[in-house]
Amino acid sequence: MQPKTNFRDVFYVSDGTAITSETLGHAVLGQFDIETRQTTLPFVETIERAESVRRKIEAAYEETGIRPLVFYSIVIPEIKAVIEQGPAHFYDILNSLVVPLKDDLQLEPRPMLQRSHSINKDAASYQDRIAAIEYTLAHDDGISLNNLDQADIILLGVSRCGKTPTSLYLAMQFGIRAVNYPFIAEDMKSLVLPKAIEPYRYKTYGLTIDPERLVTIRQERYANSQYASAMQCEQELDKVEAMFRREAIPYLNTSSLSVEEISTRLLDMSGLKRKMC
Amino acid sequence: MQPKTNFRDVFYVSDGTAITSETLGHAVLGQFDIETRQTTLPFVETIERAESVRRKIEAAYEETGIRPLVFYSIVIPEIKAVIEQGPAHFYDILNSLVVPLKDDLQLEPRPMLQRSHSINKDAASYQDRIAAIEYTLAHDDGISLNNLDQADIILLGVSRCGKTPTSLYLAMQFGIRAVNYPFIAEDMKSLVLPKAIEPYRYKTYGLTIDPERLVTIRQERYANSQYASAMQCEQELDKVEAMFRREAIPYLNTSSLSVEEISTRLLDMSGLKRKMC
Repeated sequence: MQPKTNFRDVFYVSDGTAITSETLGHAVLGQFDIETRQTTLPFVETIERAESVRRKIEAAYEETGIRPLVFYSIVIPEIKAVIEQGPAHFYDILNSLVVPLKDDLQLEPRPMLQRSHSINKDAASYQDRIAAIEYTLAHDDGISLNNLDQADIILLGVSRCGKTPTSLYLAMQFGIRAVNYPFIAEDMKSLVLPKAIEPYRYKTYGLTIDPERLVTIRQERYANSQYASAMQCEQELDKVEAMFRREAIPYLNTSSLSVEEISTRLLDMSGLKRKMC
Repeated sequence: MQPKTNFRDVFYVSDGTAITSETLGHAVLGQFDIETRQTTLPFVETIERAESVRRKIEAAYEETGIRPLVFYSIVIPEIKAVIEQGPAHFYDILNSLVVPLKDDLQLEPRPMLQRSHSINKDAASYQDRIAAIEYTLAHDDGISLNNLDQADIILLGVSRCGKTPTSLYLAMQFGIRAVNYPFIAEDMKSLVLPKAIEPYRYKTYGLTIDPERLVTIRQERYANSQYASAMQCEQELDKVEAMFRREAIPYLNTSSLSVEEISTRLLDMSGLKRKMC
């Protein structure tokens, strides 16, 4: 049996979106064998809100008798001080790096409202990103093969191999204009690269997937259909992969990869720069 | 004039996607007055790849005579050691928190391949997320008002106030099923809550925007159109905001907010839980 002390309340607290605190806290906690109950408290920008955070920390401590873990990022010292009065273990996610960096750079930091996901830092790149999302939506799933000259990347593959989520992630996270185009059952008789894509093959990449995994995914959507049958899935994948090889289109098997991993691997393969958003 | 030492090469290095290293490094560097040239090197999973990273660090140092800054997260000690031979300042983004956490928890960490954006940890929640993206795409921009019982949140607003990017971000980042529905010029004569949405008003939120900002955004798309005119924008916003108030739909002005900020504020307003993806 697990000792009860392996349970911890975890709070992610920030004067911004708390997305960075959450991401990092999650990664760090993944290294410990503990059970957690997690609460995210963004936009803690006033003393009142900080007091409410402190009360939540106190309540968790009173309920469990165990000090909660607080991953936080707050710039204004007065607000920070209120939270730090709570009965918890505190991890300042930025300061733990700012302090050594300050020594190495021999520069003083200029703390400012920690808005790592804000619009104001770089309005132009922000508009680029919105435009990339729009472009990608307009070129999802073969809707359009116009304006391919403006694409940063073109993805090909069978239905349900991960093209749409990957394209949207590339646009949303990295400001990349992604086109995706599906091959369907009717294409299989004489599978060729679509004419419109040929001039852009240098920025074209394939996605593929293990047949078993494809069957599972398609069954969830259309159980017992021809479309989801093992034979159909195997045939489509065979033909499409053969085409990728024949046409020298680099391709990636998505079976065990998350959307983030597929996206960053594609950036890596293509040499495309991440545009930080 | 800025002294030349304010320039730094920055490397983000990881055995995973490097998304966490990038996000955190970016936030930390934002606090210092330096100019940077940034390189991201994901999937450093072999000694060979680590040696190539080390050579890149060496090359940067030789070119500039200034030690680069390396934000990194690598689990396997042998791979880590190769990179740390480079002439750089190193910031281990996870260890800087794992070390104090270990003391506070009095538990040993169990280092594992740092896959904070991977599919394997929790396949069910990953499938939920893909389903959320699909649902959200199928309910973008008023395409469908079916199956609203399955929505986590319903967003209303005029054209170009941020509904689509916000909906997609909610789905992608938090696994939330978002519906969005636009009000168009023709709706303005007698603006009411769509009948299909009425039963779900408890999960309905409005987005609004300053008229000047809306004009700018619409002009970029359809310059000199009626649609982008100041009069049209003001009128639409007046009517839609009046409707939000009349119907007691909580709403949010998106003018100075990023997609991340709009999304997290909506979660905050609605009490919806973030599903970590």
